[in-house]
Order: sequence, then C-alpha cells, then structure tokens
Amino acid sequence: MNLAIENAKAMKGQTDPNPLVGAVIVNDNRIVGVGAHMKAGELHAEIHAIRMAGDHAAGGTIYVTLEPCSHHGRTGPCAEAIVKAGIKRVVIAALDPNPIVCGNGVAILENAGIEVLTGVCEEESRKMNEVFNQFIVEKKPFITLKSGITLDGKIATHTASSKWITSSEAREDVHKLRSEHMAILVGVGTVIHDDPELTSRIPNGRNPLRVILDSSLRIPLDAKVVNDQKAETWVFTGKAYDQEKKRMLNEKGITVFHTSTLQTDPREVVNILGENLISSMMIEGGGNVNASFLEHQLIDKVELYIAPKLVGGKNAPTFLEGVGAEQMSDAVELTDVSVAPIGKDFKFTGYPVYVKQ
Amino acid sequence: MNLAIENAKAMKGQTDPNPLVGAVIVNDNRIVGVGAHMKAGELHAEIHAIRMAGDHAAGGTIYVTLEPCSHHGRTGPCAEAIVKAGIKRVVIAALDPNPIVCGNGVAILENAGIEVLTGVCEEESRKMNEVFNQFIVEKKPFITLKSGITLDGKIATHTASSKWITSSEAREDVHKLRSEHMAILVGVGTVIHDDPELTSRIPNGRNPLRVILDSSLRIPLDAKVVNDQKAETWVFTGKAYDQEKKRMLNEKGITVFHTSTLQTDPREVVNILGENLISSMMIEGGGNVNASFLEHQLIDKVELYIAPKLVGGKNAPTFLEGVGAEQMSDAVELTDVSVAPIGKDFKFTGYPVYVKQ
Repeated sequence: MNLAIENAKAMKGQTDPNPLVGAVIVNDNRIVGVGAHMKAGELHAEIHAIRMAGDHAAGGTIYVTLEPCSHHGRTGPCAEAIVKAGIKRVVIAALDPNPIVCGNGVAILENAGIEVLTGVCEEESRKMNEVFNQFIVEKKPFITLKSGITLDGKIATHTASSKWITSSEAREDVHKLRSEHMAILVGVGTVIHDDPELTSRIPNGRNPLRVILDSSLRIPLDAKVVNDQKAETWVFTGKAYDQEKKRMLNEKGITVFHTSTLQTDPREVVNILGENLISSMMIEGGGNVNASFLEHQLIDKVELYIAPKLVGGKNAPTFLEGVGAEQMSDAVELTDVSVAPIGKDFKFTGYPVYVKQ
Repeated sequence: MNLAIENAKAMKGQTDPNPLVGAVIVNDNRIVGVGAHMKAGELHAEIHAIRMAGDHAAGGTIYVTLEPCSHHGRTGPCAEAIVKAGIKRVVIAALDPNPIVCGNGVAILENAGIEVLTGVCEEESRKMNEVFNQFIVEKKPFITLKSGITLDGKIATHTASSKWITSSEAREDVHKLRSEHMAILVGVGTVIHDDPELTSRIPNGRNPLRVILDSSLRIPLDAKVVNDQKAETWVFTGKAYDQEKKRMLNEKGITVFHTSTLQTDPREVVNILGENLISSMMIEGGGNVNASFLEHQLIDKVELYIAPKLVGGKNAPTFLEGVGAEQMSDAVELTDVSVAPIGKDFKFTGYPVYVKQ
C-alpha cells in the first residue's frame, strides 16, 4: 500500500479535478503490476496495474489507495475490471467520497466473491486527496491561504517594502505549491502594486489559472497577467463594472465575470469557479482579501511561511486585516497543525475550524 | 559532565546574579562527590563536591561546568581548593567569561601540575549561563522579550479582547519563566488596562522584581503591583515627574527612579537595573514598549508563544508596533531559532542579531 500511495502522490498536480490514486498488484509474494491515475480522462490506476500484470493478475491481491469506481465514466468501472482479471483479494485505503461511488465499488467486488479489506493507511490516503474529497461533494474549490510573513505577522514594512521576507527555499516551495493548484487568486491591489506573473517558476511547473478580484475593474491594461499569455487570467468584478474596460480586457483574451453585488462577493466567486471545475485554489492576497475569504469561512487550509525576523510598525500591514474578530474567543482556531523548517524559515500548516454561521 | 550540567541546571533561577555551576568528582571509576552552586554568597559547586568526596577526592578527576574561580570572593578560590584536595585531573566545560577569572583558574591548576582539559560540552554550558555570561561582562541585564500571540501576530482583537490567546500549558510555562528571571517589565498601559499581579503562580515560584515604565507617573495608586506586597515594584519615569505622586508611591513602599529624558529612556532603565545587580529581565509589554526596547537593540532573546488561531483586524494590535523598520532588509533577524509544541501552541525561541548602530 505504501508503494501505491507513493505512485499516487507522484502525480500531484496533474490529475485535477480527479483524485490521486495508486494501485499495486501482488501475486505469489512478488509485485506483478503497478499503476497510478495520471490525468483526468485517461486510464485509472487499477487498469494500468492490471494491464502491466497481464496473466499474473489472476489469483493475486490488488492494493489500491481509493475504492475502485463503480460507474461508467470516461473509463469503464474498475471494480468490474478487477473481477474480470480474476483478482482474489482487494485491499483499499479509503472509500470514495464521491456519492455515486461510495460503497458501490466494494459491493460489486464482494458480490463477485472477492475478499475486500478497507481502511489500510486510510488517513494518509484521505489527506492526499483533501482537494478531491471536498470538491466531489461540495462542488467548490478547496482553498488554501498562503502567506510569507515575519514573526510579528507582517507582510511588508510601514513603507510597503516587502522584498524579501522569506528565504529562497521558501519561495521555491511556493512555486511548487502554485503548480499543484488549479488556480491562484490575488486582489487587484497586488496586481497594481507588484505586477506579478503568478506563474510557477520551477522545472515542469504547471501555471495555474490566475484569478483577480477587482470590484471596480481597476486592473491596468499593461499588467503582466493581462498580457503575458503565460496562463489564463479571469477577472471577477462587481455588478456596476465598466463595460468598455471589460471589452478591452476581453480583446486581450481575459475572461471577466461579475457577481451580483457591488463589491465582488467571494462566495459567488467560489461558486463560479466550482462550476468551471476548478477544484483547488491558492490565495496569495493582501490582508483584506485574505480576511474577506476567512470571514466567509471559505479558507480550507492555511500555509504560512514564517521568517524568523522582526519588522515592527503599527502601520506595517499584517497578512490578515479587515475588521477581525470581536472577542478573542471568536478567533478561528486551526486544527491538525504542523510546523517544519524550510531554509531559514518555518512552514506552518493548519486547517481552520469554523463555528457554523 | 552530563550529570554536572544536570545538577547545575536544577538550580536555575536561584543563583542570580551568579552562574549555574555543577561539579562531579570521579575516582576509581565511581562517582565520589557531586555538587552545584545553589545561591549567591553560598559555597561553589566544586567545594560541595570536594566536601562530599572527603578522602576520596585525592587522585580523582573533577568534572566542572565552568572554570574554577581564581579570586577570593565571598567564598575562597576553588582552583586552590582543588589543588589542596589532591585532585589529579580537571575537566572543564567552559572558561569563565568573568574577566577577573578567565584563564586564571586554569593557570593555577596547571601550575600545580594538574592535568586540565577544557571545552567538554562547552556549548551546552555556555547556553545554560547565557544570562551570567552577558551580565558579568556588560553589567546589564540579559533581556528576554516574551509574548503570547495569534498566528497573525496579534495580542488582542480590535476591541482589546485578549483572554485567552494561549493554552493553559503555555501560560504555566510563562509563570515558570517569570520565576527564572530577576525582574519583569511592563508599560504602565498594561497596569492600567489589565491590573496584573506579575507574579509567578507555580509551586515554589520566585516572584521577580516588577518594573513599570511610566513616563508620566500615571500608575493608579490602587493597582495590585502597588499594593499587594507580593514582590518589590520599581517605577521608572521621565525627568518631569509629579513629585507628590512619587511621594505617595514611596509611602506604599514603591521605589521610583527617573531617567534624564522626558520619556523614560529604556537604555537608562537597563543601566540602572544593571547597577542594582539585576542580571535578567523579561519584558511582557504591549507593542510599543516591546518595539522601543527592540529599536534600542536591548532585546537579547525572544520567546513567543504562538497560538494556532487567526483573529484578523487592521486595528488589532500586534506584539511589535512603534514605527518599525523602513525596509524589509532592515528587519531584525533572529538566530539559533527553535520551535517546540507546548499544549495546543508553539513556543518559538530565538536571539536577535543587531546591525551595529
């Protein structure tokens, strides 16, 4: 199962919106087939492994990180393929959260007289597919808030100086994170102030869709994200947008969406992205954009790169502004928190726990 | 040597302004004496160990965490006592940074024909005496900035709600830290807003001297630190203080110092504390007091308890305010940084590296 998980994880960032899945077939105490799902629309992990095993699949055991599918999607149902291959035993890490599969794959296998064992390395398999697990149920992207901050929570000095907060190792890790997300979101303020490319500058890095929140369509027509063609750019504005500016942006290949409110509503943005099969998004906004998504309980994961330095300043911006919580007891707690060193910095990962509104 | 270090560390908080020192005497492959320095003015570690060893000291090896002293202070020179006891070999972790000892203790031993080995577990011994090592050379207290903050650097919400940020485990650790420091400093704002006791509420906790920065002598006469007699309280004010208010504070047993400036100058405060043999102080101030000490390069160590929660708020105070650095490259970097979990929180420790002004 560990090998199956390793194979699944190796495909991170290239299977969206499908889950990461790995499979290994063992027969007579030797591995006869290995597979992983590599790209949406292509073969599932089990099929690759069964093909590799050939005649050796019959009588063997297949280890698969996610419940084999039961539905006739773009590829046939894997549960039936397993039955047909003569496999005698199926070990599954996690059931499929997809309501049209959950439990049905196991049922097909058991009805065919195959021994099924579930829950092996379940936690690890679930975590690896945290994006898919949410998207398949809620049809909204899994949203990660990322920020590089000083130890006193600042993202710039009081003079707006911000280069560089974190070490090159941390910044390279951010480029890897970008390539693992389908979209990246910033506010128009970041575009105006920094004119970033928002691309993944690592070898074989995949550039995410660039999403810009821009209530008044202030985005400069000469911004890099408007002109460089390195990735698609979608601009979300409010209902009273400037039609002429929208036309000019469209001419440059930029898609402009508007929400039903004057200020761009983050909930509508997220719903529109979900409808467009964007299953994962990273927010690299300023303090107000970040706070707006947190207030709407839309942040699923937080990734902070904390540089061990102190900048100070009552007017130096922090990564989380807006109005903020009234009482300390209303603060949003994070769960499943981990801290790891990266370069000279520390990467802090956690998952917000929201009180239902 | 490890046992000697353990014995030395066990006395943390009770030897000030003297260093932590432990000693172990070994003869014929068995431990014949153990000692530690327990309180300023009382016996040194080596003397305790020699007395315990009695006749067994002769011909043995003494392991001592700090160079044996060479001067006739409140107790006799330990180097001579070692010679007199007939010890044949001395293993030393660190030389004494005290300029009137450094190297002289070793010289006495070597002149008597004793084999001397230095530098065993030196780093650990130095770290354990970081307070003493600075104080004995600079005659200024070693200053630790302590704060309990949210992951976004805040010490309260925008409505000044601050209870509680950190877990009970972290707060208990703070009480332990307090008992290990000779003094604790806050601004008068904290006294007015929170009316804290600033005591160490752990079993056998030693209450530190309470130091209040109060440029205009605004401290309320009914504040706990003025009335509760649980520890001494020293108030530092500016040169234009209210003589009548000072008299009233004196009547309550409070000592009032003033600096030569209108606003209380942190450098003068630190010098006055040093003259009064205060070798260690912890600052638990608000963002402006903390920033003022950092700007004057007076913070020697930073201890942050980071709670994994997000509070947000442009107007929520951070633990480091003031004006702050102009450029990100001017931020104060921390070195020798470590992070450890404590309760639900994380304790972040580091040492500021200052660019000479």
